[in-house]
Amino acid sequence: MKAAVFYGKQDMRIEDVKEPVPGKGQVKIKVKWCGICGTDLHEFHGGPAITSVTPHPLTGQMMPMILGHEFSGDIVELGPDVEGDWKVGDRVTVDPCIICGKCYNCKNNHYNICSNLGFVGLASNGAFAEYCLAEDYQLYKLPDNVTYEAGAFAEPASVSLHAVRRAGVSLGDTALVVGLGPIGLLAVQAAKAAGAAHVYGVEISKARLEGGLNLGCTEVFNPKECDVVAEIKKRTDGIGCHVAINCNGNDASMRTCLDATRGSATIASPGHGGGQPAQISTMTDLNFLEKQVIGSHVYVYEFVRTLPLLGDGRIKTEELTSAKIKVDDLVKGGFEELLNNADKHLKILVQP
Amino acid sequence: MKAAVFYGKQDMRIEDVKEPVPGKGQVKIKVKWCGICGTDLHEFHGGPAITSVTPHPLTGQMMPMILGHEFSGDIVELGPDVEGDWKVGDRVTVDPCIICGKCYNCKNNHYNICSNLGFVGLASNGAFAEYCLAEDYQLYKLPDNVTYEAGAFAEPASVSLHAVRRAGVSLGDTALVVGLGPIGLLAVQAAKAAGAAHVYGVEISKARLEGGLNLGCTEVFNPKECDVVAEIKKRTDGIGCHVAINCNGNDASMRTCLDATRGSATIASPGHGGGQPAQISTMTDLNFLEKQVIGSHVYVYEFVRTLPLLGDGRIKTEELTSAKIKVDDLVKGGFEELLNNADKHLKILVQP
Repeated sequence: MKAAVFYGKQDMRIEDVKEPVPGKGQVKIKVKWCGICGTDLHEFHGGPAITSVTPHPLTGQMMPMILGHEFSGDIVELGPDVEGDWKVGDRVTVDPCIICGKCYNCKNNHYNICSNLGFVGLASNGAFAEYCLAEDYQLYKLPDNVTYEAGAFAEPASVSLHAVRRAGVSLGDTALVVGLGPIGLLAVQAAKAAGAAHVYGVEISKARLEGGLNLGCTEVFNPKECDVVAEIKKRTDGIGCHVAINCNGNDASMRTCLDATRGSATIASPGHGGGQPAQISTMTDLNFLEKQVIGSHVYVYEFVRTLPLLGDGRIKTEELTSAKIKVDDLVKGGFEELLNNADKHLKILVQP
Repeated sequence: MKAAVFYGKQDMRIEDVKEPVPGKGQVKIKVKWCGICGTDLHEFHGGPAITSVTPHPLTGQMMPMILGHEFSGDIVELGPDVEGDWKVGDRVTVDPCIICGKCYNCKNNHYNICSNLGFVGLASNGAFAEYCLAEDYQLYKLPDNVTYEAGAFAEPASVSLHAVRRAGVSLGDTALVVGLGPIGLLAVQAAKAAGAAHVYGVEISKARLEGGLNLGCTEVFNPKECDVVAEIKKRTDGIGCHVAINCNGNDASMRTCLDATRGSATIASPGHGGGQPAQISTMTDLNFLEKQVIGSHVYVYEFVRTLPLLGDGRIKTEELTSAKIKVDDLVKGGFEELLNNADKHLKILVQP
C-alpha cells in the first residue's frame, strides 16, 4: 500500500509498504481522511521529538514510522478476539491514545496521562497510508450525520472540548481563546457550545483571525496591532474575561491570559509553548486574584462528546479545512505549505 | 493607651495614643493577644509595602499606623447601629478583611480578593495596642473551648484552612507542605484534619522541621541535606504526592511541588514568594501530568470552620507559640528576634 514514512527531520518518503495485518484485539481500517496536526509539523520540521526513536514500551515499534493520528475510515478486517460490537464496514474514527491500563494514571481515570502513553501515528504506524491498524478500545463509530472529513476532526476537537471542560466554561461566561490555530478555533466553537456569551480571540495570522470571526468569536484581536489586554478589559467592565484557553502555551500567551482575566478565573492551557516555561507570580498572578492555571492534555473519552456536536453542526469543520490533498503531495502540499504559507492555512486534510 | 506605631522601615515607636472611638457599625475591642505575622515582619524590615501610605479608599487611614491583625480580645464598647448579636464582654476574634461589598469579587462571593481590600492593622489601626476597632461584619465569637491565645491564631489558621480546602485535600491523600512556618505548620494540621493519610514537610529551619514532626508530619525533609523529590518519590510508589501546599511561593518551592506530585495533582500556593515569578512549563509541568496550580488568598469565611478545630484540638497552637512578649518589647523581642533568630522561632504572641 502507499504510505508516507517518516525517516527523520524533513525526511518523509512516499513508499510502497506491506499492508498491516490486525493482531489480537485490533482492526484494520481503510483510511478516508487524515488531518495534519501541529505535532506532525513539529516532528517533520524539527523532530523527531515525540515519534518513537526507540521501541515504544507498548507497541515495540520505532522509527521509521508512518505518521498521522487524526483520521476516519472504514473497518475492513478484524483481528482475533476484538471486543465490542465492531464489524467490517463500520465507519469509524480513532482515539489514538495507546495506553497500558495498569499505571496509576490509567487506573485513576486519567488515561490521557498514562505513564506509558503513546499515540497511533507516533508510537505505531498511523494514517498517512491506505490502511492503518487500531485497537478495539480506540474505536468510535461515526454517526450517520458525521462525514469522513468531519470524523478526521474528532481528535483535535476532542482536545479542544477537553480544555473547555477542564476550564469549566459555564453558561454566560465571557471566554478568551489565545491562539486561533485549529485547536483554538475548535475551542472557540466548544466554548460557544458550552454556553459562553462571548468569546474573544487573540491571534496574529490573518487566516486565523478571519477563522475566529467566522466560527463564533465576538471579536478578535491581533497583539501586533493593539493592546489586547486593554481592549478586552474595555469590553468586560474593566476586569477581564471569566475564563481563558491558552492554546499557545508560551510565556507571552500565558501573560495575556493572566492579565486579561478577572478574579477567580481559570486558565486552561492545552498549548505546549514548545516547552518554554511561563513566568507566573504566585503573589500577583495567582493569589491576589485567586486564579488557577491548569494543564489540559489531549482527551479523556471526549470523543463520545465531540461526535454528536460534529454531527449537529455546533462544531463546524469545513470552515477549518484550508486544503485537501493526496498523500503523494504530503511533503510539498502539506508540511512545506503549512510552514511557508502558515498565514493562509488552518487544517489540511490528506487522502491516501 | 499604649500602642506600637509603625512610622516606616524599621521605625516602630511605642507611644501613648488616644483610645479609638467606635463609629457606626464598629465595636471597640480590648486586645488580649496579637500574633506577629510574616507580613508585619516584611513591613517592618523591608516595607512599607502593604501598609497604606496614602489614605485607604475604604478607611481613609494611612501611615503612621498601628500594625497587628491576628488577634483576640473582649468587646468593651459598641458604636451606633452595630448589626448582629454583639454585646460588651463578648470574647471575639476578628477576620481583618476590610471590604467594599460592591465590587465584582465581593458580589461574586470572593471578598478575599475585593478590589478595594484592606486589612485591620494595615489599612486601619490594628492590635499591637490596648484597644482596637473592628467592623461588625468582621467579628467571630470565640467558643468557650478556645483560649484568647488560640483565638489569636484564628487568622493564620484560616489562611491554612483556605489553602487546604482550595487544594482539595481529600481523605487518604498524601500531601506535601513546602515551608513550615506558622502557615505551613497550620496547613500540616489542617491537611491531617481533612483526612490526609500522610503529610510530608519541607523546610530548612531546625525549629520548623521539629515543629513539623510535632504537629503531624509523617516525615520532614531539609533540601540542604537531601534530594527532597527523590525521597518523597521513594515513599509514594515513585510517583509523588496527591496534593501540595506551597507555603513559600517562590520558584524553588514551586519546583519542588511540581516535581514531587503525581498526575492530576493540585498545587495550592498561599505563599507569595516575595512576588518572585515561578517558572512553570505548560507542557511538562501542567499538561503531560495534567496538574493545576492555584492561587489561595487569605480566607473566605474560614473563621467559622477554623474556630471549632481550634477548640477541639485538631488545630494546635501552643506548640506553634515560641515566645510571648509585651508590646513594649515588640521591636527587640519581636521583630528583631524573628529576623536574627529565625531558626528558633515559630509564632510570637504579643500582649498589650
